[in-house]
Amino acid sequence: MSDDYRRVDEGALRDYTAAILRGAGMTNEGAGVAVAVLVASDARGIESHGVARLPQYMRLIDAGVLDAAATPAIEREGATTALIDGHNGMGQVAGDYAMRLAIAKARAHDVGVVAVRNSNHFGIAGYYAMLALEHNLIGLALTNSSPLVAPTGGRRPMVGTNPIAVAIATGDDQPFVLDMATSTVPVGRLEVYARKGLPLQPGWAVDASGEETHDAVAGRAGALLPLGGTAETGGYKGYGLGVLVDLLTGVLAGGLYGPLISGLWDATAPSDLGHLFLALNPAAFGPRDAFHERARDLIRRLKAGARAPGVDEILVAGEKEQRAVDDARAHGVRLYYSVARALDDLGQRFGVGNLLTHAEGSTG
Amino acid sequence: MSDDYRRVDEGALRDYTAAILRGAGMTNEGAGVAVAVLVASDARGIESHGVARLPQYMRLIDAGVLDAAATPAIEREGATTALIDGHNGMGQVAGDYAMRLAIAKARAHDVGVVAVRNSNHFGIAGYYAMLALEHNLIGLALTNSSPLVAPTGGRRPMVGTNPIAVAIATGDDQPFVLDMATSTVPVGRLEVYARKGLPLQPGWAVDASGEETHDAVAGRAGALLPLGGTAETGGYKGYGLGVLVDLLTGVLAGGLYGPLISGLWDATAPSDLGHLFLALNPAAFGPRDAFHERARDLIRRLKAGARAPGVDEILVAGEKEQRAVDDARAHGVRLYYSVARALDDLGQRFGVGNLLTHAEGSTG
Repeated sequence: MSDDYRRVDEGALRDYTAAILRGAGMTNEGAGVAVAVLVASDARGIESHGVARLPQYMRLIDAGVLDAAATPAIEREGATTALIDGHNGMGQVAGDYAMRLAIAKARAHDVGVVAVRNSNHFGIAGYYAMLALEHNLIGLALTNSSPLVAPTGGRRPMVGTNPIAVAIATGDDQPFVLDMATSTVPVGRLEVYARKGLPLQPGWAVDASGEETHDAVAGRAGALLPLGGTAETGGYKGYGLGVLVDLLTGVLAGGLYGPLISGLWDATAPSDLGHLFLALNPAAFGPRDAFHERARDLIRRLKAGARAPGVDEILVAGEKEQRAVDDARAHGVRLYYSVARALDDLGQRFGVGNLLTHAEGSTG
Repeated sequence: MSDDYRRVDEGALRDYTAAILRGAGMTNEGAGVAVAVLVASDARGIESHGVARLPQYMRLIDAGVLDAAATPAIEREGATTALIDGHNGMGQVAGDYAMRLAIAKARAHDVGVVAVRNSNHFGIAGYYAMLALEHNLIGLALTNSSPLVAPTGGRRPMVGTNPIAVAIATGDDQPFVLDMATSTVPVGRLEVYARKGLPLQPGWAVDASGEETHDAVAGRAGALLPLGGTAETGGYKGYGLGVLVDLLTGVLAGGLYGPLISGLWDATAPSDLGHLFLALNPAAFGPRDAFHERARDLIRRLKAGARAPGVDEILVAGEKEQRAVDDARAHGVRLYYSVARALDDLGQRFGVGNLLTHAEGSTG
């Protein structure tokens, strides 16, 4: 596998991709925010939401359906709440702006809730939830997304993979970070399995007739199943969570929702996605240190629990990603050669050299 | 099946069970609240959390590990937040009190968050979330509970079925009400399947060695699986949600959590459960009518979606339960004879007659 990727210094990758995004019309500040989110995704081992997506963002910008230069603005505001118009800019810019506003409100009033409309794909939801951690706040981030999931009993994709992310500090360097799509698997998983000819697991997808399928190609033609799979295995709960996210994002903020959202990376119409961000001060409910101690104690107990056969370790949400970050900091971010080549193409287009030049200080 | 149950007028059932709870030492007000939650559960078709649980609550009261007479009190309060000490009383009383406080705070400040510690089983989480509806607020209710679920990769029950409930008004008589345990199925399902000798579905349970099992008796000796089942089918997401609920309830409020919580209906130690309630004003983000219209439109579109073979209708969270309520209002609440007999035993003990006498005005 190590032949497939190279290692690139995180800072160098940020600098290079920021130069590309500035070339595409983003402001200095906006490009800095966007690449912080994208590269954090790669560092966390979630390559599907990282810099590999730059060519797709670029196609939306080129088609004029995403305004790279846009900056978000407050449309409506109260002491604890706000509505942000993303002005059809990069979702990362609107997301970062909105989460920081929620944090400011929580610092003043113990809780802040900020909704965003007229936005685009914002990358990993966990990034925004984690912004709360440095302020000793609990962070929550939700977004709706292109329809890929069938409702329980349905056979067409009508709900996004609508992720839920929550970050909770524990007083050490291992926060609890849940960042989960409300489908069983991401759509990229079906693409990989289709390419490799591998059978799907139960609960992943239905075919175009609505029957559960283990055939990846048939699944791509059908729809993802919500977390829980079919009705018999609790899929209506994952479906319920997906609709909940839609109600709290696009529906609440006044953007698009459910089947009204255009297809993934569709370059014919603006996305008008909705997000929701919440920050909450745990110290409003009692001493922070005691809260952290209880959180660490729960995590310790879970990890010390009796394991199933063949299991080396019980993990807690965010632990695997934190290890990927530690690895990326020490050895550089893993970047597939195919992705590096695509970035170099963009770099050439915008006259910012190639990644290798930029990444000379790389540890890879 | 109709031989198994009778129909009892909802009000009569409330009056009768309230009389029992007053006999057990609850205040008038407390008993009224507790039976409102319990009977609402029966009316919604969730008998597992309804008046059938009265004998179990009674055993906790008799054992002196639950204080029937207790009233909750504010321990800590800010403009938008509060911490409630449930004083080891009935969870319904603390839950109702705390949710109404969260609602009052949201009416004043657009959002309110109230945590509860030192509480007991509070019945269905959806009841509290739905209290927000009559104030045109979005309601959320969480509680931790006795460990029944194995962490992904584990083989012992260490996390509760920790439910998540969210209620969102849509401007008509069909609100969106998601009320879901974060396990695939409730533990009662295994009990029923064990009794009937039926095989479990995939993703429901592991045996004591940590292997997934389709044997209900083996599952009872092992643990429930989180929503999503095993790791391959996304079970780490349900496990993550269960731990999230623990962190936002027992851990945040300063109660017990995870494996520290005593067994279900264990009468040897106080439960010290934690709950969390949140109310949010959707009108803070834009006109309420437009929000409701978008919510109804999303629900209409989901219901009108293409269906899988053999599926009569696509449902949205809360729809099935609302139909059960309509049926209960028209024809009386379904009450299994075994449950009615258990209630009559309690009625006799506290000198409040039997259910039939109380339910003379019943439609059943």
